[in-house]
Amino acid sequence: MLPKPYLGGNQFLTQLATVPGRMKALVKAAPALGAELREVEVPRPGPGEILVKVRVASICGTDVHIYEWNKWADARMKTPIIFGHEFAGDVVSLGAGVADSGLAKVGDYVSAESHVICGACYQCRTGQSHICRKCSILGVDRSGCFADYVAIPAVNAWPNPPALSPEVASVQEPFGNAVDTVFAGDVPGKSFLVLGCGPIGLMAVALLRASGAATVLATDLSEYRLDLARKLGATEAWNAGATDAVGRDTVGRVLELTGGEGVDAVLEMSGAKSAIAQALKVVRNGGRVTLLGLPSGPVELDLAENLIFKGVTMQGITGRHIFETWYKTKAFLGSGLVDLRPLITHTFPLAEFKTAFELAISGKCGKIVLRV
Amino acid sequence: MLPKPYLGGNQFLTQLATVPGRMKALVKAAPALGAELREVEVPRPGPGEILVKVRVASICGTDVHIYEWNKWADARMKTPIIFGHEFAGDVVSLGAGVADSGLAKVGDYVSAESHVICGACYQCRTGQSHICRKCSILGVDRSGCFADYVAIPAVNAWPNPPALSPEVASVQEPFGNAVDTVFAGDVPGKSFLVLGCGPIGLMAVALLRASGAATVLATDLSEYRLDLARKLGATEAWNAGATDAVGRDTVGRVLELTGGEGVDAVLEMSGAKSAIAQALKVVRNGGRVTLLGLPSGPVELDLAENLIFKGVTMQGITGRHIFETWYKTKAFLGSGLVDLRPLITHTFPLAEFKTAFELAISGKCGKIVLRV
Amino acid sequence: MLPKPYLGGNQFLTQLATVPGRMKALVKAAPALGAELREVEVPRPGPGEILVKVRVASICGTDVHIYEWNKWADARMKTPIIFGHEFAGDVVSLGAGVADSGLAKVGDYVSAESHVICGACYQCRTGQSHICRKCSILGVDRSGCFADYVAIPAVNAWPNPPALSPEVASVQEPFGNAVDTVFAGDVPGKSFLVLGCGPIGLMAVALLRASGAATVLATDLSEYRLDLARKLGATEAWNAGATDAVGRDTVGRVLELTGGEGVDAVLEMSGAKSAIAQALKVVRNGGRVTLLGLPSGPVELDLAENLIFKGVTMQGITGRHIFETWYKTKAFLGSGLVDLRPLITHTFPLAEFKTAFELAISGKCGKIVLRV
Amino acid sequence: MLPKPYLGGNQFLTQLATVPGRMKALVKAAPALGAELREVEVPRPGPGEILVKVRVASICGTDVHIYEWNKWADARMKTPIIFGHEFAGDVVSLGAGVADSGLAKVGDYVSAESHVICGACYQCRTGQSHICRKCSILGVDRSGCFADYVAIPAVNAWPNPPALSPEVASVQEPFGNAVDTVFAGDVPGKSFLVLGCGPIGLMAVALLRASGAATVLATDLSEYRLDLARKLGATEAWNAGATDAVGRDTVGRVLELTGGEGVDAVLEMSGAKSAIAQALKVVRNGGRVTLLGLPSGPVELDLAENLIFKGVTMQGITGRHIFETWYKTKAFLGSGLVDLRPLITHTFPLAEFKTAFELAISGKCGKIVLRV
Repeated sequence: MLPKPYLGGNQFLTQLATVPGRMKALVKAAPALGAELREVEVPRPGPGEILVKVRVASICGTDVHIYEWNKWADARMKTPIIFGHEFAGDVVSLGAGVADSGLAKVGDYVSAESHVICGACYQCRTGQSHICRKCSILGVDRSGCFADYVAIPAVNAWPNPPALSPEVASVQEPFGNAVDTVFAGDVPGKSFLVLGCGPIGLMAVALLRASGAATVLATDLSEYRLDLARKLGATEAWNAGATDAVGRDTVGRVLELTGGEGVDAVLEMSGAKSAIAQALKVVRNGGRVTLLGLPSGPVELDLAENLIFKGVTMQGITGRHIFETWYKTKAFLGSGLVDLRPLITHTFPLAEFKTAFELAISGKCGKIVLRV
Repeated sequence: MLPKPYLGGNQFLTQLATVPGRMKALVKAAPALGAELREVEVPRPGPGEILVKVRVASICGTDVHIYEWNKWADARMKTPIIFGHEFAGDVVSLGAGVADSGLAKVGDYVSAESHVICGACYQCRTGQSHICRKCSILGVDRSGCFADYVAIPAVNAWPNPPALSPEVASVQEPFGNAVDTVFAGDVPGKSFLVLGCGPIGLMAVALLRASGAATVLATDLSEYRLDLARKLGATEAWNAGATDAVGRDTVGRVLELTGGEGVDAVLEMSGAKSAIAQALKVVRNGGRVTLLGLPSGPVELDLAENLIFKGVTMQGITGRHIFETWYKTKAFLGSGLVDLRPLITHTFPLAEFKTAFELAISGKCGKIVLRV
Repeated sequence: MLPKPYLGGNQFLTQLATVPGRMKALVKAAPALGAELREVEVPRPGPGEILVKVRVASICGTDVHIYEWNKWADARMKTPIIFGHEFAGDVVSLGAGVADSGLAKVGDYVSAESHVICGACYQCRTGQSHICRKCSILGVDRSGCFADYVAIPAVNAWPNPPALSPEVASVQEPFGNAVDTVFAGDVPGKSFLVLGCGPIGLMAVALLRASGAATVLATDLSEYRLDLARKLGATEAWNAGATDAVGRDTVGRVLELTGGEGVDAVLEMSGAKSAIAQALKVVRNGGRVTLLGLPSGPVELDLAENLIFKGVTMQGITGRHIFETWYKTKAFLGSGLVDLRPLITHTFPLAEFKTAFELAISGKCGKIVLRV
Repeated sequence: MLPKPYLGGNQFLTQLATVPGRMKALVKAAPALGAELREVEVPRPGPGEILVKVRVASICGTDVHIYEWNKWADARMKTPIIFGHEFAGDVVSLGAGVADSGLAKVGDYVSAESHVICGACYQCRTGQSHICRKCSILGVDRSGCFADYVAIPAVNAWPNPPALSPEVASVQEPFGNAVDTVFAGDVPGKSFLVLGCGPIGLMAVALLRASGAATVLATDLSEYRLDLARKLGATEAWNAGATDAVGRDTVGRVLELTGGEGVDAVLEMSGAKSAIAQALKVVRNGGRVTLLGLPSGPVELDLAENLIFKGVTMQGITGRHIFETWYKTKAFLGSGLVDLRPLITHTFPLAEFKTAFELAISGKCGKIVLRV
């Protein structure tokens, strides 16, 4: 809340001798499909920043949107920019003021919170910095991590235990989204429906089971991902686009499985407009609907019937509480209660980014990691 | 939670000698505009019930819908039925099992919770009985209080202090809706926008100021009600249909008044579809939007931009927590922190119900009370 | 909250033909050590009550206090009384008013909430009926279940799924204490210390692990119970009366295991005065100390140093929230997330009560069940 | 949570020309009663710090302990040190890195959070920085504000509205303690007992009434302060050392005033050991006891009877949530809902510190402000 404004008395850069002048980086070069692997200058960490040698970086749905250059990317971003915001690596140099801060030192094995916040606004000063209105995001608003090196503020660094594999360390950032969505309400002993089994939906399934959710139902359109959901602990998982043997759709199945009551909570991870309307129909009176998936336009809802008369709470989740979610992530991974390895289905060298992105677009994968 | 299943050993009706056989009652006789004052039989309290001689009954927006026979009424109700569900009166007889229950006795001056709940379902047994899926409502699903006498379950009775005026005692039921809406989140020190200054909106304004809300903005289409809002403590109140001197609408005004941040909470009391969309636009990142007003059909919302990215919580409120809200009501009225009298603008004898309902429809009134 | 005041129109007892006139019962006959197996009259269910044929009943620490006739028993209870309050059995007859209540019917396989509450006070009407000031407890203030038959209010009955073993069904009541203690604060991802591994402490250990607690430390004086704690999922369990290889006591061990920070929460289940002081020393700044164990006299605490400066919260737990805890119990047992069978270490016929109580006093057991 | 680690690119001190080299300061020179007004060097703001020209500083109970040099002071502090930690003043120069931080600029009229936190620990990174285990406090662990100038971290500065009087601005820091204590649980519609009407107790009384507390009872040993409590809104206030006309002490009076139920919450502001035991006796079943006053040694409590069986929660409060409490303070003072002026009963020039401290020790005062 009130971190060191200036991280110590060292006015000079602390740096390993070995940082080169040039590096390779995946650059979104133009407002169109694709990306380019280029040689660019290694960034210098500014005051309060650190330079990290990236070991691995993982691909987020947002990176896919950037790669494809969808409407959101076109409205929000400027090219050229190095993208990517999930990674694990090693601190190789410190900007001014970092040395005595207690936040990072050369040699630390780190991942990072991707939201660079202002630190001075109401949200930042009251425990809600993840919704700071002035925040900039790695790989979206400033240079990202699909590169040999990335410079980040020292306060964004998260120290990893040495034994944590870089692949798992890298996906802690999106796991934090799952943590924030799952724990936006009570979990132990409750029943859940997870709509959408992309990587974050799958993480939510694993987390729910590890946290005592009594029932974890899950839907997706991809059989590949439904299989993963079952492996990670879903009680039942089915294709959202199909009906069951007796003609029931998702709404019918959930009501049948819950004796007509509905589930205690729905976690919406798909962004499908129809899914949000379904969520309100199958949630129990007094339950919660937590939205992480981003619908692509306005959504029409019967609020009177399905939210007001039912006494339902609907919550929007974005980013992740900084650093509550990181501490919880550490606790779940460190205790072995959640194992994210089954979810990391593919790794590629950075140079094969094209194959990696095409696979991500296909949906026939869990999480994809790039070796840098 | 676990009240007496059977309220004592008395198997026989305890009754005052003076209860007559016939009474006058306002009957919704047919599925069309209007109502009829009829002579009907006085109800007999069944096991666990009490009979109350009604002193006054007040008109709710729902009663207006029943009088006008709108779409909701047509779908939900069956005629003929005595309507009305807000009242104050005196207990004149007890059904079997009530005598030793500690819940009510002959001579008690009472008002009543209008939701008759099942007592056996998940919601009823976990502190959410106001959203019991099997509840029936006085004057909607069973005989109501626009009559000389009304029979209600003893557990629905709420004892009034003798000094409380019947008019104020009667409007405790809708005040409970305001209590539930206002206290669905933090109040002291926070900023609020109340959309819609009908009686419950006005009660919310008074309650917010009494509870330490730092800013209470309010809108309505009726100047009459905006004046009442100012009297009851609104910091600023304006016509939702107009723009200000420099052309700002409600969204512009709220953002201007909050330095671009938005308000901590919006209480939606109007049921206007456009108001809900406005609410999401003017709420602060991380704030709450609490919906009590019932929109008449589906509502289109930009959830990605205005709820998810903002980390907003939207809550549906119906009825009122039984009996938390009644205890709070007692505390606010009993301590003098809230005075509802300015809000009760008109009283009529029951026989003048037609004038009363026409006035209610006009919106040029606060709360209207019928003397029975 | 607002259950049926009178549970239907049936004024007459509904009863199976087979209920005999006399039964055997374990009676606390006099204010001294021991109990007597006697033949007594079968109780008749009063209005709103049901009669249950007991299949099994389990022994609680409170029953041991009654058997031993400790100071608390002497101050609170009157003899003669049938004791026992944890059981599973079958409904064999209904008192007046129960038939149409939806709460119980002849043939139901039930366990029961042991607190018979007033239903009319502030606590009962605001979701805190477990701390009703007028409640009476089965087997303490009214006839209990160490008998062939027991009469209880229908609203106290909890329907068991047919597949649940009577032994496990019986211990749901104390499991509810564990549920209330464990979920008095956040669990998933947090670190815990459980002081005291009697049956409820052991249940808490199992529940914590099933609910995503990252670390579950446990202490007791009995090696038998420490072994059970390890089997049920304790991360580390040690003898509270001993020091470790390098001379550390419980405080030292916890601080060492948590890097000097302390645990997020301490659940005090032993009632030892020294344990409460320890709890405050080893809880993290901002953590919680939840007390279920009953110290036998005043406790001396350094509140300034260990509670106020640390921003700690200390909570008293008694009974269990009715019926939130029962629904959670059902969810944990029904989903298989918690298995209580390893904890039920002994069963005896009721006639061997003396052996059973002596074993309970020895501490060389988990939960003991009596077959009736 | 994640503030700017380095507050901008300015490596050089930004300073008004007019800052002199020497200043007067109230120095705790030796471990004994008293203090000395000395001429000392004006501090230079380090990196991330600002220099503030103090206008006024107010005396806290802690300052009185330091002046008197009690046991706590002797154990915690080292002499010589400039003490004082509540103030209002003007920023006259900026240390390196502050200029572009958005946190403070030359000319700002500020008060300050007195806890200088580490920013890197679990508590700091999860919204509980007020209980950071490495925090140092102005005027206790580092140079304080009883001086012409004080240097503080820029992140500790709180911008005051120009219209706020320096006296009131100065006492915002202790008001934050009252805010944290009062809002550690629900307030609107609840009943309260405030034990101890020193300045923070009086602030709590004012805050409770402004926030919709239905009943605010208060006790103290000083009639002067009881009068202030009544002026600030206490429903009833009485001498804790006396009994009433019919011989009732505080416990008896509270139970009588609440119909035997007890109050919803007790705020313990006196630090008297007996008061904490009283608090547990008069709190309602399920209520809360919030402790801010620091007892001078171990306290003996009947936890079984008065905390566990009653389901009570006891909370320790220290410092104030940074910056939630400051935003609430701003809201209450800015809206006019709380007026702290009646509470500031005396002002003295710094040179008359001896008179001021003697008055503070006498208890015949509200808050005392020193003009610097």
